[in-house]
Amino acid sequence: MSLKEMTAEQLEELAAQTRRDYDKLKAKRLKLDLTRGKPSQKQVEISNELLALPGVDNHTDAAGNDLRNYGNLEGIREIRELWGKLMGIPAENLVAGDSSSLNIMFDLISFAWNFGTHRSKRPWSQEEKVKFICPVPGYDRHFAITELFGIEMVPVAMREDGPDMDAVRELVKDPAVKGMWLVPMFSNPTGVTISEKVARELAGMDAGSPDFRIIWDNAYAVHTLTEDFPTILPILDIANDEGHPHRFWVLSSTSKITFAGGGVAFFATSADGIKWYLKHAGIRGIGPNKLNQLAHYEFFGSAEGVRSIMRRHRALLAPKFEAVLRILEDRLGKYDFAAWTKPEGGYFISLDVMDGTANRVWELAKNAGIVLTPAGSAFPHGEDPNDRNIRLAPSLPPLKEIEVAMKGVATCALLAALEKLGY
Amino acid sequence: MSLKEMTAEQLEELAAQTRRDYDKLKAKRLKLDLTRGKPSQKQVEISNELLALPGVDNHTDAAGNDLRNYGNLEGIREIRELWGKLMGIPAENLVAGDSSSLNIMFDLISFAWNFGTHRSKRPWSQEEKVKFICPVPGYDRHFAITELFGIEMVPVAMREDGPDMDAVRELVKDPAVKGMWLVPMFSNPTGVTISEKVARELAGMDAGSPDFRIIWDNAYAVHTLTEDFPTILPILDIANDEGHPHRFWVLSSTSKITFAGGGVAFFATSADGIKWYLKHAGIRGIGPNKLNQLAHYEFFGSAEGVRSIMRRHRALLAPKFEAVLRILEDRLGKYDFAAWTKPEGGYFISLDVMDGTANRVWELAKNAGIVLTPAGSAFPHGEDPNDRNIRLAPSLPPLKEIEVAMKGVATCALLAALEKLGY
Repeated sequence: MSLKEMTAEQLEELAAQTRRDYDKLKAKRLKLDLTRGKPSQKQVEISNELLALPGVDNHTDAAGNDLRNYGNLEGIREIRELWGKLMGIPAENLVAGDSSSLNIMFDLISFAWNFGTHRSKRPWSQEEKVKFICPVPGYDRHFAITELFGIEMVPVAMREDGPDMDAVRELVKDPAVKGMWLVPMFSNPTGVTISEKVARELAGMDAGSPDFRIIWDNAYAVHTLTEDFPTILPILDIANDEGHPHRFWVLSSTSKITFAGGGVAFFATSADGIKWYLKHAGIRGIGPNKLNQLAHYEFFGSAEGVRSIMRRHRALLAPKFEAVLRILEDRLGKYDFAAWTKPEGGYFISLDVMDGTANRVWELAKNAGIVLTPAGSAFPHGEDPNDRNIRLAPSLPPLKEIEVAMKGVATCALLAALEKLGY
Repeated sequence: MSLKEMTAEQLEELAAQTRRDYDKLKAKRLKLDLTRGKPSQKQVEISNELLALPGVDNHTDAAGNDLRNYGNLEGIREIRELWGKLMGIPAENLVAGDSSSLNIMFDLISFAWNFGTHRSKRPWSQEEKVKFICPVPGYDRHFAITELFGIEMVPVAMREDGPDMDAVRELVKDPAVKGMWLVPMFSNPTGVTISEKVARELAGMDAGSPDFRIIWDNAYAVHTLTEDFPTILPILDIANDEGHPHRFWVLSSTSKITFAGGGVAFFATSADGIKWYLKHAGIRGIGPNKLNQLAHYEFFGSAEGVRSIMRRHRALLAPKFEAVLRILEDRLGKYDFAAWTKPEGGYFISLDVMDGTANRVWELAKNAGIVLTPAGSAFPHGEDPNDRNIRLAPSLPPLKEIEVAMKGVATCALLAALEKLGY
């Protein structure tokens, strides 16, 4: 029975029972952590072979360059071709870097800020105001970058097929709006995948500023939780079709495919955009670790090789997501006050508890030894205007721990809701 | 006989002979390259074992952390301790990063520019003017960074024991002077090593600005060309002694020890400075490739292990430097119009030809198929006010090619000098 349909007496009784459940939970003295989207030990083990690659006699790329030496700012051709096949991007438009796509995103904003993009009238820092559109809930590390640069973040809601396009179309008319964050597939944390329709609208819409950029952070492009791999939209082709070839800064990486923090990151955009990026990256340094790129190429073998690794990740991840969803449904479904996403890929489940209780849920969980991502962290400046969103990250802990933790989270969510209702 | 002592007739004759030599040189249709300080194939082969490290069962640091996963912004403890022993820096003051110290230098300036250092009143970008002291001849890639940010570069002369301290002491009183580039050992390109006296003066001198920083780019700290390893000044201790603990940003890397572009870079400064750097680096990304750090730790084993690798580099490099010096002495010594450094370490020989002829020497060499670093490249904006300096980089080509190339360079330098004298 939904909380709304319950009588005062029934709610009173439920609250008493839930308090007893919570006390039992605390008595267990748990130490569980659902905070970050880290792969589990079993997941990183999938790539152990990489630890001995490229191998002692292997240090030359297909073009015959000695990868032990300096040179090659854009990364080795073969890994760019392999990745381009996977992502639907020509190797010419693709740069292979060091481990972290976040680093590249930071640099893109920093370069635009200090020197302007190849289409900017002036450096962004010389504009009176710079704004970024931020679909929410979104990725805290994106927001941390824009916050650091003093960029104003304008939230728009994420819908089932992408950001609220009516809001986006209106906002982007403002010439101060220079950018937009977006995780286009299995979005962090909602799990939403942008439809082709929305992608075409994003690519085609008029922007007030010629250097408006969409940071298309395709971090989870092949991170399916089902049998199927979703279609990866050829976003640079779409951008060309729709008349704004330079609009997208496309990021991706092997961080959650091979080793988190020891993989290869990729950046793609128009040929002019790549040239602009490399001009600055080439002053920042000599180039990426090409030997790690060769190691990855050897390990993957082909685009299909990447998918075959992702199937092994799915086998480890899917049961954990299923457990979270099952427990949420079992424990909270009938009370009808909370909502959660049912993602088909990615690393997160986004849980909306009763409005005004997310911080309290976090506190209750913490006091019971279950660490959750701080409430609000999926919003700019960590401020969820409804105080209702909690990002669940079930990848790292073993299945049994997740089950224990989620039963606890359900108790906390219910208790906080009942408290809010005055019980 | 020196050119100055020669009669017009003798000069005439010498010019005729040198022109015949130059024509013969051109007839050889050489294709030789002395442009960049790249290690040779035999040098990078020294570290081939690294290509299979850390190895399939090796992915945990001494503290038990799984290095295949996220975490650890400052780099793994054991490589920081090893490197700290080598460099005379406590591990607490030392961050281990990805491959390139140049990247870290760029980021330091970029962070200070956009956000200010922990001792800045405001971001450098908000100052009316920012200046950097640039010892010349110096490193072109340093100057490229400051040029990109629009920082005014003020050249000071390099002496035998470091930069002209009278000039530096005077310049640094200006609060607009926020930084100074310096390669303290086997400097690029002069080979100069800063004396302890100069280091103490740099550490102790009064600066007009509290956030004045010396970028102590110790790229060649163990890159000796003799039997001995020079003393590495414990610059952070010196900075503490002399009352300016935050002044030095200390950089180094394994780029010319293991693999150029695939090594580990290090950054050291005061504890507060490290905290400031990590605060921003932690927004830029998740952390460095720790597996490559573990691989390097396994490969080196100890600080002595690094020195033992450097002895093998020396065995390959020293004969090349000897050949350059021998040929310069044989071919130019007696004419007494050119001067060159005789470095005991590092990667370069700095050649001063007759004033006003460096560009011409470069052109003559190029037309004879010998590519030299563009004249002036060791000066801010590539402008050598005396048009006399050429940086020679003898590491990459095989010894025989170096001998052929240097005989050619000597011919070009002599011809340009004779042309300048009107012959």
